[in-house]
Amino acid sequence: MIVVVTPNPAVDVTYRVARHVPGETNRVLEVHRRPGGKGLNVARVLAGLAVEVRALLPLGGDAGRWVAGELALPHDVSPIAGETRTTVTIDGDGHPTVYTEPGPLTTDAEWARFGELLARRLVGADLLVVSGSLPRGADSGLLGDWVRAAHQLGVRVLADVSGPALLAAASAGADVVKPNLGELLEATSAGDETAGAATLSRLGARLVVVSRGGDGIAAHLPDAVVEVPAVPGVAGNPTGAGDAATAGLAAALVEGVPLAEALRRAAALGAAAVLCPVAGEVDLPAYHRFLDVNGASA
Amino acid sequence: MIVVVTPNPAVDVTYRVARHVPGETNRVLEVHRRPGGKGLNVARVLAGLAVEVRALLPLGGDAGRWVAGELALPHDVSPIAGETRTTVTIDGDGHPTVYTEPGPLTTDAEWARFGELLARRLVGADLLVVSGSLPRGADSGLLGDWVRAAHQLGVRVLADVSGPALLAAASAGADVVKPNLGELLEATSAGDETAGAATLSRLGARLVVVSRGGDGIAAHLPDAVVEVPAVPGVAGNPTGAGDAATAGLAAALVEGVPLAEALRRAAALGAAAVLCPVAGEVDLPAYHRFLDVNGASA
Repeated sequence: MIVVVTPNPAVDVTYRVARHVPGETNRVLEVHRRPGGKGLNVARVLAGLAVEVRALLPLGGDAGRWVAGELALPHDVSPIAGETRTTVTIDGDGHPTVYTEPGPLTTDAEWARFGELLARRLVGADLLVVSGSLPRGADSGLLGDWVRAAHQLGVRVLADVSGPALLAAASAGADVVKPNLGELLEATSAGDETAGAATLSRLGARLVVVSRGGDGIAAHLPDAVVEVPAVPGVAGNPTGAGDAATAGLAAALVEGVPLAEALRRAAALGAAAVLCPVAGEVDLPAYHRFLDVNGASA
Repeated sequence: MIVVVTPNPAVDVTYRVARHVPGETNRVLEVHRRPGGKGLNVARVLAGLAVEVRALLPLGGDAGRWVAGELALPHDVSPIAGETRTTVTIDGDGHPTVYTEPGPLTTDAEWARFGELLARRLVGADLLVVSGSLPRGADSGLLGDWVRAAHQLGVRVLADVSGPALLAAASAGADVVKPNLGELLEATSAGDETAGAATLSRLGARLVVVSRGGDGIAAHLPDAVVEVPAVPGVAGNPTGAGDAATAGLAAALVEGVPLAEALRRAAALGAAAVLCPVAGEVDLPAYHRFLDVNGASA
């Protein structure tokens, strides 16, 4: 079983407008709401792959109640007093515009209760995935706590986080950290991917997997780099592609396949997510086609 | 007592961003949420003037529950199955950008229950104010029903509505309709204010009050026009100024002051609202100063 933590879940709202006119009043033609947050996308893709998964998330307020009611996944809620955040995406002409709320202030006592719930759920689990941002004001040291809690129970950890939380996960010895290239460079202040991955390895990360968008995925080991190319000629909605790749990597880690094969699955799932309009969904037939393509070219 | 109907209330969300960049992800620095809708603004200003007021509104879903919990006004809720809408305002550099959801689909049975509640509340009332849009798909004929229900009980009606609802209110013989100039021209397809007001009078409106923003307020009677200028030199947040003017007009109607004095109060309250950052609030000391200024210049 894979336990997936979403530290800062959201109500993801998409507004379709005929034409997006900043500085004016825009009448919304259609409203779509769904539970959001990178961890939930990862968990949804895993469930779509028929992998046993359990989502763990703090939720609060009316928005939190709504998210809990909509979740079609096995999950545990750790209640908080603050209001779960909302993200708003404006889907009009041109590139989508996104507004992300910082997330609720969460007390130390609430995080302590979350940690206790996590420790209970990790008993007997195969892998812990932590994916997405921490809410405003949260101590990035939480990542270290969660990594250590998992390791004490013999559970490996994949951390798909950014900024100080990425450094904290690496420092605590996370088995896999999976930033995208921009996040890697930003968190480590490194000049290039190799230097950034070396920094995370030096801090303690056992494996550094870097998603490069259209340029594929690379896994940095202490003495080697394993790379797979992106699936060529795939166009669509890149939102959630990184989360699908994380899910593919997580599933492959649990299955124990060789690293190059794990990366191929991650790349193929990321591409299959690009074909779907909604984050957290993948085009499974396309995934299997892409696996063949990439397998042949590898 | 003034009964104020808000047919399409909202959760008004304001996002403060450092810089508004369309087509990108914008991190929200501050989130403010408050119950919104023009009728609620009118009711809040009336309450601020110590006028006895009761708000009536349909509410549904988690958003509706939230609005009901936050309302610091005497009010009655008519429950609906749909989710009360949200409006999002982006407050960054430059003009605010606003996204308005269309509002919940509301069934005929739900509107019938709303009408029954309204009829009960109108017994002994001094005035009915209907302010703001109807939700998506609602029949503008509702305005006619409400006007007739009020008149049957001897209660006058002030309708601050637009589009087909404005025509319906006029046709049912609303005592006062109060569009702004843009709404008047749009609803009547008239070429100018005089022609537009004549159309509404011909339909049946007893008095047509037109707010002209910086150019003051005019009341069109069958045989005369009464005008007051705007308070000069007032700069700030125009959102909610029209609602404050509606409140001033409503309070003056109930008090029975002469029409020119009612318009002066409306103009002064509108200007006093411009000085406040939040719709539904007015700067009362400024209101009284503005009354003196306009009184002297009238």
